[in-house]
Amino acid sequence: MTSSTSAAPGTAAHDFAAQLSRYAELLVRVGINLQPGGNLLVNAPLEAAELARLVARSAYRAGALNVTVRYHDAQLGRLKIDEASDEAVAHVPSWLPDETLRMIDDGYAFLTLDGSDPDLMAGADSSRLALSAKLRAIVMKAVSEKMMAFEVAWCIGAISVPAWASKVYPELGQDEAVSALWRDIFRVTRADTPDPLAAWQQHIDRLGRVRDQLNARRYDALHFWDPAGGTDLTVGLAENHVWCGAEDRTRCGVRIVPNMPTDEVFTAPHRERVSGVAVASKPLLVRGEIVEGLRVRFEGGQVVEASASRGEATFLKLLDTDEGARRLGEVALVTASAPVAQSGRLFYNTLFDENAASHLALGRAYEFTFGGDPAESGGNDSLIHEDWMIGTASMNVDGVAADGTREALMRGGEWAGETLKL
Amino acid sequence: MTSSTSAAPGTAAHDFAAQLSRYAELLVRVGINLQPGGNLLVNAPLEAAELARLVARSAYRAGALNVTVRYHDAQLGRLKIDEASDEAVAHVPSWLPDETLRMIDDGYAFLTLDGSDPDLMAGADSSRLALSAKLRAIVMKAVSEKMMAFEVAWCIGAISVPAWASKVYPELGQDEAVSALWRDIFRVTRADTPDPLAAWQQHIDRLGRVRDQLNARRYDALHFWDPAGGTDLTVGLAENHVWCGAEDRTRCGVRIVPNMPTDEVFTAPHRERVSGVAVASKPLLVRGEIVEGLRVRFEGGQVVEASASRGEATFLKLLDTDEGARRLGEVALVTASAPVAQSGRLFYNTLFDENAASHLALGRAYEFTFGGDPAESGGNDSLIHEDWMIGTASMNVDGVAADGTREALMRGGEWAGETLKL
Repeated sequence: MTSSTSAAPGTAAHDFAAQLSRYAELLVRVGINLQPGGNLLVNAPLEAAELARLVARSAYRAGALNVTVRYHDAQLGRLKIDEASDEAVAHVPSWLPDETLRMIDDGYAFLTLDGSDPDLMAGADSSRLALSAKLRAIVMKAVSEKMMAFEVAWCIGAISVPAWASKVYPELGQDEAVSALWRDIFRVTRADTPDPLAAWQQHIDRLGRVRDQLNARRYDALHFWDPAGGTDLTVGLAENHVWCGAEDRTRCGVRIVPNMPTDEVFTAPHRERVSGVAVASKPLLVRGEIVEGLRVRFEGGQVVEASASRGEATFLKLLDTDEGARRLGEVALVTASAPVAQSGRLFYNTLFDENAASHLALGRAYEFTFGGDPAESGGNDSLIHEDWMIGTASMNVDGVAADGTREALMRGGEWAGETLKL
Repeated sequence: MTSSTSAAPGTAAHDFAAQLSRYAELLVRVGINLQPGGNLLVNAPLEAAELARLVARSAYRAGALNVTVRYHDAQLGRLKIDEASDEAVAHVPSWLPDETLRMIDDGYAFLTLDGSDPDLMAGADSSRLALSAKLRAIVMKAVSEKMMAFEVAWCIGAISVPAWASKVYPELGQDEAVSALWRDIFRVTRADTPDPLAAWQQHIDRLGRVRDQLNARRYDALHFWDPAGGTDLTVGLAENHVWCGAEDRTRCGVRIVPNMPTDEVFTAPHRERVSGVAVASKPLLVRGEIVEGLRVRFEGGQVVEASASRGEATFLKLLDTDEGARRLGEVALVTASAPVAQSGRLFYNTLFDENAASHLALGRAYEFTFGGDPAESGGNDSLIHEDWMIGTASMNVDGVAADGTREALMRGGEWAGETLKL
């Protein structure tokens, strides 16, 4: 799970406009499930103006009182790292979270349109970058805690922007790449189907059945082994762990889909009971830098060895953020046949890539993945939450009960039909 | 005085980039005169990203601690008027001013990049528009009061955007229009001169000499008469009125230029001592609608008759905002040879047009145009402040002393050399 728009006609311009409208409607009606009289904050990159306006229109038509769009310009972040004084890089305005906290109090729904240049921070000073990210996370901690507790509705959806699209489709010209990535977004979010809202309901029901069966089993641990990929890892699950996925409910009982697309079920590992080797099956993006060929060894829940063929220093710096950065906060199961996985592309974007493969996350566990107190249940805490993919088409996963008995959960990257009813 | 970016190469691309950089530097160094260790908030339309980034770079290089850019999307405002419920149109979030007030407390400088579609609100429901503008002004009153009291540094500069440029240059293609408007901006802000900072100093000194002489004279009233244009108006000046212009000082003593361009000197009329007829010499833009052929008659300080060949209903609605909306809050003198006037164009933009002609403003007087208490001095108050131009190349202005003696201030639209030393 991840918690963090220019337009180019793909087929006919008319089709694109129609799909973009349906996509906006999906984000408003299914993603944040906006209630009449509700308020909406949209976080969007500058390129997302067209989609943001369609979202605002959908929201007002659904009876919204107010829609505020906060446009952000990622290049300003890069510019600060490159041009500002050390004092300025270490300065995060103390008022930064206040408006958002006030909106949370007022019951705003939060929609984030996610689309950015994966190479934005390439070559930037990594110490400045790490310091800036850490200080920002500290100042914004109250906001992320309230979001993670679902005090309000929120959803993250994707948007195709040139820099991202060209990274995913380097063989295409910029306009074609933007179109191709839009087609991916419409496909994996089912905005290209005749009745996207019905298609989503069906999808959510199926994923919900897997989640509910896993919750009924109460496994003590998961064992991942992948003869081809090299992973052989036992992930102890937290006491009182809760499997989540598909949809969530806000404190007020509104059903939302926090990530679109979403094809994962996930829960909380025990911070001290992880051991073995995990090999990343895809590159990951850490603070703007690509980390490739990552291989990590755990003992007693902690990373004791980590190596990478690219970006190793960045990954090691991430581990040093705080004590919890070396331990797991999430384990997630995704089949190799999920829509994002089917494209066979690397998207350099967590929202997409984490829905293409089973994955782990270093750092903070989500409060809602526990039935009791997170800390007492063995849950992890940290300023970071960094997903990385280990799933492949040769991945096997067993559920291990407290008495050591095992059940097949995944075989060759797909749900094991002998254990799970779909 | 007014208190409220795309890039297209004009000549060579290199020249444009260089002038845009110099312009950014001017706004930071002269406009808000950013101090080392200071903070900056930039308000900018979506099209202003390129200039906003150059401003941020200049600010960080000048030692800024933090630069925040708030991008706004004017189309969202139009969309709300068109699509939202009545309840939503009447809803302004109470938290709206809080972040800005907090920034004011923290001593932020505020730079507004002004460039919008003059026809944005054409055809929109004028009652909804007026209600929305009025409620917003009420919620934001504390902010505008603090700005008007120069508690912090602020400046408004212009940016060429396609919709505005095409309105000013309807005979040109869009790219050419954007370039032509950029050339105007660079010319009237002196960003096209070899040493823009020195050119500004010279300009400010000259305008300051006019301002200082007017302050020394202590006129009781101004008499405007324009045989060709039809204006014949006596504007009584407030007791303790102060002539302002060219530059201002913040509470902390920082010298700023709040409007770029600026070619006016201005002061506060007496709210009850205005009589005669004022004929607008240019169309004005009221809440997004063009008002043309405006002719207004005053008695006892109040508008008693107003007619227009276009937009009359909008103007009459403006007068009904509150009691002070029918009285004057500003009178300003601008020569017919000022750089903006020389272009001969109508810019459909207050920042430009008010620096092309002597003008009046209905509504709120600026606190700093009084040497004593504004209300006791006969100053006006209102939620609105609406400038409209009366100056022409045939305008004459006399300064009238308390004993009735007169001195020539302007003849044929230019300063009268027999009275004023330039």
